[in-house]
Amino acid sequence: MNSHHRPSSPSGTNLDPWYNNYADRAAGLSVSEVRALFAVASRPEVVSLAGGMPAVSALPQHLVVESMAKVMAEQGSVALQYGSGQGVPRLREHILDVMAQEGISGSVDDVVVTTGSQQALDLVTKLFINPGDVILVEAPSYVGAIGVFRSYQADIEHVLMDDDGLIPEALREAITRVKSSGRTIKFLYTIPNFQNPAGVTLTAQRRVEILQICRSEGILVLEDNPYGLLYFDGPPPAPMRSTEDEGVIYLGSFSKTFAPGFRVGWAIAPHAIREKLVLAAESAILCPSSFSQLVISEYLSTADWKSQINTFRGVYEERKNTMLAALAEHLPEMTWTKPNGGFYVWLTLPDYLDAKQMLPRAVTELVAYTPGTAFYADGGGRNKIRLSFCYPTPDQIRLGIRRLTTVINSEIDLLETFNATGPLQTIRQSRSFSAPPPDLD
Amino acid sequence: MNSHHRPSSPSGTNLDPWYNNYADRAAGLSVSEVRALFAVASRPEVVSLAGGMPAVSALPQHLVVESMAKVMAEQGSVALQYGSGQGVPRLREHILDVMAQEGISGSVDDVVVTTGSQQALDLVTKLFINPGDVILVEAPSYVGAIGVFRSYQADIEHVLMDDDGLIPEALREAITRVKSSGRTIKFLYTIPNFQNPAGVTLTAQRRVEILQICRSEGILVLEDNPYGLLYFDGPPPAPMRSTEDEGVIYLGSFSKTFAPGFRVGWAIAPHAIREKLVLAAESAILCPSSFSQLVISEYLSTADWKSQINTFRGVYEERKNTMLAALAEHLPEMTWTKPNGGFYVWLTLPDYLDAKQMLPRAVTELVAYTPGTAFYADGGGRNKIRLSFCYPTPDQIRLGIRRLTTVINSEIDLLETFNATGPLQTIRQSRSFSAPPPDLD
Repeated sequence: MNSHHRPSSPSGTNLDPWYNNYADRAAGLSVSEVRALFAVASRPEVVSLAGGMPAVSALPQHLVVESMAKVMAEQGSVALQYGSGQGVPRLREHILDVMAQEGISGSVDDVVVTTGSQQALDLVTKLFINPGDVILVEAPSYVGAIGVFRSYQADIEHVLMDDDGLIPEALREAITRVKSSGRTIKFLYTIPNFQNPAGVTLTAQRRVEILQICRSEGILVLEDNPYGLLYFDGPPPAPMRSTEDEGVIYLGSFSKTFAPGFRVGWAIAPHAIREKLVLAAESAILCPSSFSQLVISEYLSTADWKSQINTFRGVYEERKNTMLAALAEHLPEMTWTKPNGGFYVWLTLPDYLDAKQMLPRAVTELVAYTPGTAFYADGGGRNKIRLSFCYPTPDQIRLGIRRLTTVINSEIDLLETFNATGPLQTIRQSRSFSAPPPDLD
Repeated sequence: MNSHHRPSSPSGTNLDPWYNNYADRAAGLSVSEVRALFAVASRPEVVSLAGGMPAVSALPQHLVVESMAKVMAEQGSVALQYGSGQGVPRLREHILDVMAQEGISGSVDDVVVTTGSQQALDLVTKLFINPGDVILVEAPSYVGAIGVFRSYQADIEHVLMDDDGLIPEALREAITRVKSSGRTIKFLYTIPNFQNPAGVTLTAQRRVEILQICRSEGILVLEDNPYGLLYFDGPPPAPMRSTEDEGVIYLGSFSKTFAPGFRVGWAIAPHAIREKLVLAAESAILCPSSFSQLVISEYLSTADWKSQINTFRGVYEERKNTMLAALAEHLPEMTWTKPNGGFYVWLTLPDYLDAKQMLPRAVTELVAYTPGTAFYADGGGRNKIRLSFCYPTPDQIRLGIRRLTTVINSEIDLLETFNATGPLQTIRQSRSFSAPPPDLD
C-alpha cells in the first residue's frame, strides 16, 4: 500500500530543482486530507467536527500561570537551559503518579519524555522499521500514526475491529497472511481506549488474548493511550502495559489531560528499547523543552490535577451526549459508535456515499469533518466519517450535526437526480441500513 | 565509516529480547563521548569546558517572565492549544527581523519553526538521505550533526579546514573522490561562523567560491548558523543564504541568542523543500510548542533583544579572552584557534597524546573537555580537544585551564616514564610543535 514512488504533487516535479535528490522515504510524505482541513476548519464561521483539539478553555489558566511563575522564581536557570535527553527526572516521577491511575507501575528509568506522544511514535518507528517491514494497525487507525509509518516506508497491514475493539481472530489471520507473504512484522500499533477514530474500547478479555497472541508470535505491542483517563461511565480495562512489561511500549500524553501547547508526552518502554529511544530522541532534538517539563511538573505537584481531569471528563461527556442525541434526532437511519470516553464518534453513511467527495459541499454548508479514508492506508473508509466532539461547544455540535444532515440529504438528492434514469436501483440495493433515508422514498 | 552492523553495546545483545527486531539504521545510534561527559560534567566540583550550554544567567529573567505573563493574559487559549506545523506566523515574521541582522531576506512562507535547530537537521536528513548517500562535512564538525547523519545511515565524508574555514580545493577533491567511487552526494553541511568545534570562520571569498562549486556540481548547501550574531570584533561575512536562495537551506536557533530551554529553532529553505520539511515536521511532532513560540515572539516584539545580544557578546568575549590568556600562560607550546565569536576554542595537543584516553585523568583532576574524536566520523582528532568558554565564569575558566595543564603535563610525564627505555625518541620526533614541553626537556 505504501508505493515507493515519488510523490506527484504539483510542487514536487519540474518546479523543484532538488526533485531528484530526495530520499525514497520522502515519497511517504504526502499532504493528508486532515491537513487541508485544518486550514478550512480554522475559519470561525465553520463548525469544525474535524480536528482533535482539546477543550483547553476548561483548564483554569491561573493554574498554568501560577506554575509558570513558581518555575521561573525557583528554577529559572534550569528552565531556560538544555536538559537531559530522557527528560527531567522530577517530571518522570510525576508521570509515574499519573500512570498509577491506570494501574501501571514502573521505574523512572523506564520513562522517556517526548515532544508530544507523536514524537514517541516517530522515534519508535525510526528505531524498528526497515523499508517494507510490516506494522499491524487497527482498521481504521490514527491518521498521524499512519503518516509516520509511511514516512519510514512501512507496509501498513490493517486488522479489523468491531464494537469491542481489535478482533483477535482477525489479528491471527493478519499475522498468518503477512508471514506467508514472507514479510516481517515489527509491531502491532493499537489505541485500546476510546479509539481514534472509531471511539470503541478493547475489552479486558481481548487484551489478554491479544497479548497472548503477540507474545507467542514475538510481536511487540505499541499501546497508544492518550485518552485513557478521559472516560465517561467508568474506567476502561487496565492498559496492556499494566500486565506486560517486556512486550509493550506504552505511549502517554499531557495534551489531553493538561494542554497540548507545551508538547509533552512520554513513552514507557522495556529497558533495552528505552536506552535506544533516548539516543534516538537526543539525535532528533537533543532534549525536550526544560521549561515545558518543569511547568507540568509544578502543576502536577501543586494543583489538584485529578479533579481537573474529572472536570475534563464532564465537559467531554456532555459534548458526547449532545452529539449522540443530535445524531439520533437528525440521522436516525445511520449508525455510529457510542464512545465511553475520548474525543470521537465514528459515523457510517449509506455505502453509496463518498465522505471525501462530499466534503467540499459540507464546507460550503459551514461544517467540517474528517472523511474516513484518512484513517486507512488502503483506501478503506469511503463512507465513514470521524466526528469530533472534543472542541466545539454543545450548541455548536447541535448546529454542526444539523448542517451535516442537510449536506447528507442534499448529497442523496443529488445522487437520486443524477441516477434517476440509471443506476439508482443499484444504489438502493446496496444500502446497508434498514430504514431508507426519507429523501429517497 | 558508518558500519551498517548492529551496535555491540552491553544492553544491545543477549539481554534484549528485541535485539533482532531493530531497523538497520538503529546501528547508527551509539552512545557518544559527549553524552557520557554530560553526566560527569554536571557534578558541581568539575569545571566543565565540555558542554555547549549558553550563559542563560546573562538573560534578565524578568524579561522572560513578563513575556510569559503577557502571552497568557492575551493569548492564553492559543498558547495552550495545538498550532500550525510550520510554526506561528507572527514568530516567523520576527524570525525574518532577526535574519535581517545577518543580511538575509525572505518570505514568512520560507520559514519553518522547529524544536531547536537540531530537529531541522534531523528533518533535512530524513528528507534527503538514503542509506549510503554521502554528506560532505567539515573536518571536524558538530557532534550532534554527525550523530543525526549516522542515524539515517549516511556516509560522512570529511573535508579539510584551516583557519579560514572549509578549503575550496579540498571540497573539489572530496567531490571528485566521492563521485569516482560511484556514490551520491546529497548535501554539504557547513557551520561557516565560529565553527563548532573548531572556532574558525569561513572567509567571504571562500563563501563565494564554495557556493560556485556547489552550484556547478548540483550540491545543496546546509548552512548551520547558531552563533552568527555572537561575534566579538565585528560581524562575520554574510551567510551564504543571503546571496543564494535556491541552493541553500539555512538553519537558525534561539538557543544561543535567547534560551535553549524553549527549544525553538528554524529552517529557511527553498520553496519546494520547505513544503516537504513542513510535512516531515508534522509527521515527527504535529507542531512545535505554541507556548514557546508565543513567548519568544512576545520577547522579540517588546524587549530590546538587539541590546540583549550585545550583552551576550560581551559575556562570551570576556570568557574567550580569559581562555586564550590562560592558554598562552600555561600551555604556550601548544596551538589553538582564536575565535572571533561563538563558544569554542580548538586545542591541538602534541600528536603523541590521546585526548580521549586522557579524559578519565582530567575528570579525576576535576576538569572536563570534549575529546576531538567526537567531531570526526573517521577516528580523526585524536590529539585535539574542544574547549568551551560559553558556560563557565572567567574564574572557572582560569581554574579549568590550570587543571588541564596539570593533566597534560602528568600525561606527558607518564608517557616519558613508560617510554624511557624505548620509543621515547619516536615520540619526541613526532612532536608537531616547535618549543618542546618543559616537562620533557
